[in-house]
Amino acid sequence: MELPAHTNEKALSERLDHFEIETPSWGYADTGTRFGKFLQPAAATTLEEKLADAAEVHRFTGCCPSVAVHVLWDFPGGLDPAAVAKKAEGLGVRIGAINPNVFQDQCYKLGSVANRDPDVRRRAVQHMLDSVTIGKQVGSKLLSLWFADGTNFPGQANIRQRKRWFQEALHTVHEAMPDEMTMLVEYKPFEPAFYHTDIADWGMACAFAKHAGRRARVLVDTGHHLLGCNIEHIVAFLIDENMLGGFHFNDRKYADDDLTMGSIDPYQLFRIFYEIVAAEHELGRSLDIAYMVDQSHNLKPKIEAMIQTVMTAQEHFTKALLVDHAALGQARQRDDIVLAETILKDAYSTDVRPFLAEYRRSRKLATNPLSAFRESGYAERIGKERGAKKSKTTGGYA
Amino acid sequence: MELPAHTNEKALSERLDHFEIETPSWGYADTGTRFGKFLQPAAATTLEEKLADAAEVHRFTGCCPSVAVHVLWDFPGGLDPAAVAKKAEGLGVRIGAINPNVFQDQCYKLGSVANRDPDVRRRAVQHMLDSVTIGKQVGSKLLSLWFADGTNFPGQANIRQRKRWFQEALHTVHEAMPDEMTMLVEYKPFEPAFYHTDIADWGMACAFAKHAGRRARVLVDTGHHLLGCNIEHIVAFLIDENMLGGFHFNDRKYADDDLTMGSIDPYQLFRIFYEIVAAEHELGRSLDIAYMVDQSHNLKPKIEAMIQTVMTAQEHFTKALLVDHAALGQARQRDDIVLAETILKDAYSTDVRPFLAEYRRSRKLATNPLSAFRESGYAERIGKERGAKKSKTTGGYA
Amino acid sequence: MELPAHTNEKALSERLDHFEIETPSWGYADTGTRFGKFLQPAAATTLEEKLADAAEVHRFTGCCPSVAVHVLWDFPGGLDPAAVAKKAEGLGVRIGAINPNVFQDQCYKLGSVANRDPDVRRRAVQHMLDSVTIGKQVGSKLLSLWFADGTNFPGQANIRQRKRWFQEALHTVHEAMPDEMTMLVEYKPFEPAFYHTDIADWGMACAFAKHAGRRARVLVDTGHHLLGCNIEHIVAFLIDENMLGGFHFNDRKYADDDLTMGSIDPYQLFRIFYEIVAAEHELGRSLDIAYMVDQSHNLKPKIEAMIQTVMTAQEHFTKALLVDHAALGQARQRDDIVLAETILKDAYSTDVRPFLAEYRRSRKLATNPLSAFRESGYAERIGKERGAKKSKTTGGYA
Amino acid sequence: MELPAHTNEKALSERLDHFEIETPSWGYADTGTRFGKFLQPAAATTLEEKLADAAEVHRFTGCCPSVAVHVLWDFPGGLDPAAVAKKAEGLGVRIGAINPNVFQDQCYKLGSVANRDPDVRRRAVQHMLDSVTIGKQVGSKLLSLWFADGTNFPGQANIRQRKRWFQEALHTVHEAMPDEMTMLVEYKPFEPAFYHTDIADWGMACAFAKHAGRRARVLVDTGHHLLGCNIEHIVAFLIDENMLGGFHFNDRKYADDDLTMGSIDPYQLFRIFYEIVAAEHELGRSLDIAYMVDQSHNLKPKIEAMIQTVMTAQEHFTKALLVDHAALGQARQRDDIVLAETILKDAYSTDVRPFLAEYRRSRKLATNPLSAFRESGYAERIGKERGAKKSKTTGGYA
Repeated sequence: MELPAHTNEKALSERLDHFEIETPSWGYADTGTRFGKFLQPAAATTLEEKLADAAEVHRFTGCCPSVAVHVLWDFPGGLDPAAVAKKAEGLGVRIGAINPNVFQDQCYKLGSVANRDPDVRRRAVQHMLDSVTIGKQVGSKLLSLWFADGTNFPGQANIRQRKRWFQEALHTVHEAMPDEMTMLVEYKPFEPAFYHTDIADWGMACAFAKHAGRRARVLVDTGHHLLGCNIEHIVAFLIDENMLGGFHFNDRKYADDDLTMGSIDPYQLFRIFYEIVAAEHELGRSLDIAYMVDQSHNLKPKIEAMIQTVMTAQEHFTKALLVDHAALGQARQRDDIVLAETILKDAYSTDVRPFLAEYRRSRKLATNPLSAFRESGYAERIGKERGAKKSKTTGGYA
Repeated sequence: MELPAHTNEKALSERLDHFEIETPSWGYADTGTRFGKFLQPAAATTLEEKLADAAEVHRFTGCCPSVAVHVLWDFPGGLDPAAVAKKAEGLGVRIGAINPNVFQDQCYKLGSVANRDPDVRRRAVQHMLDSVTIGKQVGSKLLSLWFADGTNFPGQANIRQRKRWFQEALHTVHEAMPDEMTMLVEYKPFEPAFYHTDIADWGMACAFAKHAGRRARVLVDTGHHLLGCNIEHIVAFLIDENMLGGFHFNDRKYADDDLTMGSIDPYQLFRIFYEIVAAEHELGRSLDIAYMVDQSHNLKPKIEAMIQTVMTAQEHFTKALLVDHAALGQARQRDDIVLAETILKDAYSTDVRPFLAEYRRSRKLATNPLSAFRESGYAERIGKERGAKKSKTTGGYA
Repeated sequence: MELPAHTNEKALSERLDHFEIETPSWGYADTGTRFGKFLQPAAATTLEEKLADAAEVHRFTGCCPSVAVHVLWDFPGGLDPAAVAKKAEGLGVRIGAINPNVFQDQCYKLGSVANRDPDVRRRAVQHMLDSVTIGKQVGSKLLSLWFADGTNFPGQANIRQRKRWFQEALHTVHEAMPDEMTMLVEYKPFEPAFYHTDIADWGMACAFAKHAGRRARVLVDTGHHLLGCNIEHIVAFLIDENMLGGFHFNDRKYADDDLTMGSIDPYQLFRIFYEIVAAEHELGRSLDIAYMVDQSHNLKPKIEAMIQTVMTAQEHFTKALLVDHAALGQARQRDDIVLAETILKDAYSTDVRPFLAEYRRSRKLATNPLSAFRESGYAERIGKERGAKKSKTTGGYA
Repeated sequence: MELPAHTNEKALSERLDHFEIETPSWGYADTGTRFGKFLQPAAATTLEEKLADAAEVHRFTGCCPSVAVHVLWDFPGGLDPAAVAKKAEGLGVRIGAINPNVFQDQCYKLGSVANRDPDVRRRAVQHMLDSVTIGKQVGSKLLSLWFADGTNFPGQANIRQRKRWFQEALHTVHEAMPDEMTMLVEYKPFEPAFYHTDIADWGMACAFAKHAGRRARVLVDTGHHLLGCNIEHIVAFLIDENMLGGFHFNDRKYADDDLTMGSIDPYQLFRIFYEIVAAEHELGRSLDIAYMVDQSHNLKPKIEAMIQTVMTAQEHFTKALLVDHAALGQARQRDDIVLAETILKDAYSTDVRPFLAEYRRSRKLATNPLSAFRESGYAERIGKERGAKKSKTTGGYA
């Protein structure tokens, strides 16, 4: 329990009680790369299976009470939102962010709300309006928007015209949202568009959010930046501009690799949490930030990967909470760079796993959620059940 | 016909007569991103259709007489290689590089020749040996190897052990090749593997090629480099080491975007050709380099994109041939950087399209292959024929 | 004179008459890398020499009537701004953008307006206010701000606090500007700061400009982006937001290499100009954008490099003017990607050098400014004159 | 002392006894960026001062017994190598790697051994031969070669010709080395050259080392890679090829930022050490690898930064030694990615600072070298002594 001397363990535990992270329904399904998917027998296919898996993650970690849903994949045909909400409740979770899908249908080949064809633009807006309705029905407070819109070749389209179509569409959707709903606008530099992506960086997302209306904020996906980008700087900047809405967490080494959070650059994850914790410390209040996971695992078992992710999130959030703000402030006041850095690193270098084990025990949770899940036999059971009825084939590259 | 004064147009035309570029069978099929494929009615499905399309490209451009094939996709089940070769011949083309596929089957989830499981390694090697056999049967001189092998997470595997399995496998395959066959070893920094890729850069490909045997060379895919990489430097270095085997041409702005050649950075394409032309000029002989296309178009019509690619290749190769080697040598001899750069740029800035139109006319080809193809009605016809029997659905992201 | 058929050469020439590009005084002085400077005898030392060199560039190119100045380097001690303006006038040029320098003095080690020390912040603001005064005295309409402020290590400083100091300082300076002056806010991702730079990207520069006041705009330095960044997208976005103020032109392959414009990626330069030309075409009016050069040459002779730069700028701006907007609009209206791209490339592939030679001749300028300058003997003469009195030593790395 | 259960603390301590890291003389001198240097009164100027500072670092850390020297800066004029070696010995350290400098003199403007001018090439080779002689005289076993050679513009030089000059020069120098000396060939993708750097990556360094002779190896500077590069993969590959010679340690976020080791990506540092430790574990012997620091601090106090660096190196090397090879092997044998990753992370997450404090105490060293150095008063004393006689001015950007 080797925490730094200045730590108030009780306060730390209580702060952790309020640290929640939302898992995505699609994180339990088979996903892959353009070269194909490697199918897992245990991967979920229906929303019911996804909710069951998410509930399992919450059962072992205690901090994942909500599940983000993808309208296209999760509410096909006549699925009744209210029934879904009830189903989730019965499993011990609730529906979180609503994610419209305006990128998969063939009609979106050349864009959704920035498509040259007004019919497609209308259809995309209508799908988002429908998503708002679903959100109301399931009691969701977040409309989470990611657009694949962009172009692949110079000259392909009028960039400014597309920008104005985006502004118009987002404003329309914003106006349809109930007061308690927040619109999250996500950005991404490339993929699947390879020349220009209409919402390419936080600056564009922020401009679009402001054009949309006062309940729109920026969503930071930690894998959606050009290499070298200082993400925690963007986080701090957005906090100060009151424009940070939430996160899609994952890690990457190259592009939007969608690896498990903290698996490549855990110190960066710590620094992101530090900027949030520092702002909350200075402001004396919690910030309203949605912590969500968005990963795509072609190799790791889905539920294990999710539990590992959540444990990593807790570890690094806890480390961030260990930073000695007073000492750091003093070091900065003397421009003592070496000491200031050391104080930050002291928190990061602390092994918080024993503390977290103890914390979990005190909350009647498994001290090691991953091991406990492995021992539970859940994965083997659903692997057998689901595997039997799953297709054995999948699309390939060409 | 505003070519530089020092140009010998006859020699230029004769050099172009020997500039051939191979198109890939999979370049005529539907491909996409991990977020899905946008299906084209005219896209080819069978090898016969792919060969027909490739023949069409050759018919209009006159410089694409061979077609690279992918063993898994193109020789399913009992397809007879000799019959295929004959079929191609009937269409006016021939079979070029043989590409084994050891990345798509579910068994390759954790690697092919670097898989921990010896059965999978054996299976991968056997597939390559079978590919050598097919190559012999169709009269191919190139075995073109790309491996998706790699890992997604630190700790996942023993990197050095995997390296040795690679060496062993490549050597085995090399020994089975007939004397006139060359093995091309391709490298790629990432995707689909996101932590480490077993053959990550040209240095590794070169080391593996040397371990394999004396008929192995490096294959440079222009989209397989980290951003910032000076590709023409690698090309020049490999030429000097006598280890350059060929190219997979495409362009990209971000990652392995597989856009059409020269669509993003045409000056880089020119510089690559310049390094080759300069070496050939100094050596007084042609280098044995396989020029091949490898692109993946989710938006552009397949055949049009290919013709556009081939025209771009001819344009930039021609520009490279216009460089005034004597004047450049003199400028360099005086360390006159501004003049040396200007001499290179003079060739690049020259509009060679009128010359190429004239050249094509002299060879009984359409002066503008793209327009001529558009006017031919081929695309509309196959769109109708093939579209009718094609599936309207495709796999999605999750 | 092989311009596209739709070209109105007279209108093209008249548009070129209004294309001006500002050269920077420091572009005529010795600069280098952290590993040292390679001194050139002909490089300018005093402002008088720099203005003389800039006048020479204008004399040969006819489109560089103004010179950006750097307050610290160009107005040391008691240099009288009015006298300087008169001096410039006598040489045939005028003073352009005023560039304060708040990064070189030892006091700025840990930042200027974001320094923890209020005395340093005040000093930095005062220097900018003094720069505004100089600007008024020389009749400059542009206050061009680049800050090296940032930190090198995680934890070193409070990012949000520094942001607020920046906002305060910029607003103060903005309020002191005369009505006809525009503040340009430049951004840069890194160097000389290596962990976080206070104004790291266009989004931050835009936010700071808006906080500063209504006469503040964003300055795009083409070398100040992370690799992969789509600069022309940012340009188009800023135009649509009415926040684009101007450019610092240069090229780079890796970081902020400060190479000559268009020397590495000329097609990107063309695409940037195209976005501007397209917006002006649609809006039916010229945009108020300051085109300025900012390069650092350690190897190329200073004046030659500048003339080469200006010629390259004219070439690519002319190519952008050749785009057939009507045809492009029609291709886009049919979602014909291949044709739309071809139309853009048609303009780019056109060799505009003969036209520009003719244009220059019609304006009584040398048809090839670079050759004409070389023949003038100016470089040799100043090399002798200046070289004699210049120091032969320079600082090294360690 | 919460080390993993499988840890043999005695063996761990003994292994640490053999972990030595060499500090560079130039790491104690004032360095900066191209925008200027921020001078520190305490920074060393003479070799004597540098050795004294290095000795201080060794006194507090106990693992830095050798000092890399830079021939140009450290042996100006008639400095007697033997006397220097003796001086070092008197201070408790010894001379380590010899670093020739063939990049700073004005004659190297266009390259050293790749310069077009044979006189410059000869001079560069002679300087390296002289460095070999100095190396013999001081008993050094390492000749450490970094070249700034490269070009800034396409067309500037003949890349293949320069390659051959490089091969010739390195071979000549290699042949002059005594048997017990190793040549280390360093690579770097860019800076100060911005188009092509003659030794741009590990593959080129490896090829040059092989051309040079059997005692040449590759030197990995951790800051000399394009973004995204998997450095530990290169390390593992070079180990397997028996071509890894040593490291220049530092960290970076963007380019060659030369920040303190582990300050930006400590997990990567751990992974590099892990690859070495794993290879040594499998081979059952220590690898002959030179661990050296190469950093450039414009802001941090020199000696503090060095001690911080060395402590970070020890921390992460220790963490790497904690990896449970047996358990990891078993997890890999079952293709259990999640478990394998967890085992690696378990070692990394362990807080080894208490163990290292105990280890240092047992070796009669300060438990916290940084704090102990701060309390020693050395920095204040030399700041006063050296500051008094130091120049207060430094070169600027322009």
